[in-house]
Amino acid sequence: MPLPDKYKNFSEWYEKVTEEAEIIDKRYPVKGMLVWKPYGFKALKLTIGILERLLEEYGHQEAYFPMLVPEEIFAKEKDFLEGFSGETFVVERTISKKLARKFLLRPTSETVMYYMFSLWITSYKDLPIKLYQTVNVFRYETEQTHPILRVREIIRFNEAHTVHATPEDAERQIMEGLEIYSKFFDELLIPYIILKTPPWDTFSGAEYNFDFFALMPDKKAIELGSVINLGQKFAKAFEIKFQDSDGKWKYVYQTCYGVSERVVGVLISIHGDNRGIIFPPNVAPIQIVIVPIPGEEMLDKILEKCRKIFERLKKSGFRVHLDGRREITPGRKYYWWEFLGVPLRIEIGVKEVEEGRVTIARRDLFKRVVVSDEELEETIRRLFREISEELYRRAKKWLESNILTASNIEEGLKLYKKNGGGILRFP
Amino acid sequence: MPLPDKYKNFSEWYEKVTEEAEIIDKRYPVKGMLVWKPYGFKALKLTIGILERLLEEYGHQEAYFPMLVPEEIFAKEKDFLEGFSGETFVVERTISKKLARKFLLRPTSETVMYYMFSLWITSYKDLPIKLYQTVNVFRYETEQTHPILRVREIIRFNEAHTVHATPEDAERQIMEGLEIYSKFFDELLIPYIILKTPPWDTFSGAEYNFDFFALMPDKKAIELGSVINLGQKFAKAFEIKFQDSDGKWKYVYQTCYGVSERVVGVLISIHGDNRGIIFPPNVAPIQIVIVPIPGEEMLDKILEKCRKIFERLKKSGFRVHLDGRREITPGRKYYWWEFLGVPLRIEIGVKEVEEGRVTIARRDLFKRVVVSDEELEETIRRLFREISEELYRRAKKWLESNILTASNIEEGLKLYKKNGGGILRFP
Repeated sequence: MPLPDKYKNFSEWYEKVTEEAEIIDKRYPVKGMLVWKPYGFKALKLTIGILERLLEEYGHQEAYFPMLVPEEIFAKEKDFLEGFSGETFVVERTISKKLARKFLLRPTSETVMYYMFSLWITSYKDLPIKLYQTVNVFRYETEQTHPILRVREIIRFNEAHTVHATPEDAERQIMEGLEIYSKFFDELLIPYIILKTPPWDTFSGAEYNFDFFALMPDKKAIELGSVINLGQKFAKAFEIKFQDSDGKWKYVYQTCYGVSERVVGVLISIHGDNRGIIFPPNVAPIQIVIVPIPGEEMLDKILEKCRKIFERLKKSGFRVHLDGRREITPGRKYYWWEFLGVPLRIEIGVKEVEEGRVTIARRDLFKRVVVSDEELEETIRRLFREISEELYRRAKKWLESNILTASNIEEGLKLYKKNGGGILRFP
Repeated sequence: MPLPDKYKNFSEWYEKVTEEAEIIDKRYPVKGMLVWKPYGFKALKLTIGILERLLEEYGHQEAYFPMLVPEEIFAKEKDFLEGFSGETFVVERTISKKLARKFLLRPTSETVMYYMFSLWITSYKDLPIKLYQTVNVFRYETEQTHPILRVREIIRFNEAHTVHATPEDAERQIMEGLEIYSKFFDELLIPYIILKTPPWDTFSGAEYNFDFFALMPDKKAIELGSVINLGQKFAKAFEIKFQDSDGKWKYVYQTCYGVSERVVGVLISIHGDNRGIIFPPNVAPIQIVIVPIPGEEMLDKILEKCRKIFERLKKSGFRVHLDGRREITPGRKYYWWEFLGVPLRIEIGVKEVEEGRVTIARRDLFKRVVVSDEELEETIRRLFREISEELYRRAKKWLESNILTASNIEEGLKLYKKNGGGILRFP
């Protein structure tokens, strides 16, 4: 059964693709909580792995802070408490008995971490601190939930938290955060715009934040991540002070920035087409699938060559899969792996064995090239680059063609309505 | 201040080492829940990474199942419910409102996963299933908690779950599980004994389990992990059935096996000495520390050589740290990095610069070797092997010298008392 058109009926396309292409299973009987299948989970792990690598390169260290927050610590910063009280789950008992205290399931870890920072920091020599963790957090979303994009258990929330001696240092850290996220979304081939949020949409407990937005196929903007300047609000609530080189005690300045598995939902949405997912090669759980084309003769030789190429590519560090299933035709295999978004397919039949060549098919353009066995790795690397360029070009075009420039609100709303969505710009 | 003796006063030694050597911070104000500092967290990540690699090599795939379990699913298997009801946390509200249903924080994921397995499995072609996940789980321990070893939030519970068509397949899987865990503990240089547990100590909902035990410095045995044959108990509770090749519908057979961050607490305990931690090279967050020995002259050349060696070792894939702090003497640096368990230290001073050599000191034997710059990588690899052998030899000796052979219970208890602990064997 063909997929619905991605642009005309995005919501249905998205539900079908995430559910049927081995990404998630939404039949788990709690609203907004999903089972991630191995194929989808691998894509998620590779995606978050890129961000973790970038954070480490910029001097952040990974740590772990507990999931349960004592109520009295959660309540210390009043804006934060107010902002999160509707969506924060509470634990007050075990199955068999009531507990003496109440605990909250972290919706984000500011309060947990900053309580500890107040113990860790005493001198200007302790600064800056640049930490991150990738953890599950819980938010009782009252809006409609959507698989991966809006959930109640966020299973991979990557949150970085930094502490500084001066407001200038914190500002510089905000710039670094923006740089890290820009590189991250670039590697995922997701074009974005950055907005400084207006006061009424600022993170609870923050001075201001920059949000990254992408444009989905239904022409709606979606938030990808936030880089937040917390100023001294938490420092004052948690009494995070240090003795400066001049001997005086001062409150610290803080920033934080966060991204979640939502980026995987976004990259699936943005890069896919009407045949299914197209994974960028760097986050594809399977980068190359090998499909034997059994001719009337030489079946053994074909399978032998498939196995050899498989072993060779595996050794070269590619994520490669050999689809050796006998009961399924090559054509059906093509459709299946196209649906799952594998960027390259290698076909090996009688001709390929006889001529010492392989046929490589691209997922993005459905074009085939034939190359000699010797040129294989080099060609794959080149095609990965070309596929990435093509995916980025398409995504960029989509975003840019839906940025609407207007000189006033009224004109803007008209343009927005006519375009059926998009992003409004007021120069 | 010197450490207490590891064997005479293990508990104090352990508390001091884990708290002061950058592993954890137990000042987080919830009993049994710890903050992991970057250094400790890195050791944990490397350790669990070894297990995940082994599980993948044996054909297991990583997935993710939600943390909150609806009460009615949790209650399906009666032994399981009874076994875990005392230690399982309950969520029934958000800060601002009561929820319509009750949810439990997973103490382990049998019920969450097996509910899904009942949806996934319909045919013998769907079997076997071999999945794992590494997640946080919660157990309200009523016994005294100990940092890392006995906690209420287990932050890295690696649980594998398998499903099979026949009891023989499940038995074979149990053997595979034992093999994987044996290799895992071997790589951590932790000698172990395996026991089939008596009925009164069997996992809730299981037919039988094999437990791995190590011997701690206080001569008490500690459980490292379990490999569990679940038989058909959960299959019947969750109606997990498949249509076999003979057309008949049958219940599946299941196994599961689990390990947690406790292994990091155990390896710190077993390998450490009275100067602190000794990390096995394969899980050491820092494998090599470079300490410049500033002479009266040539300071620039010394620092330059340190930086060169640092870059070179980093490029070769070693986890290396250059301790360039100026205000601290080399002697104090030695003590600090010995305390933190870095397996090798490289010292570079005037002589090392003049002669084109480096001095390498071993953490386990405090022996130094001097090698030419050219031989560096090769020597490091050899020393890593030798350190691993030495650590394993010591640990094995400790275990074996505390296995007490007795011909009856009475004699056994006498021997145990006289030895101040150990493991009793009745041939």
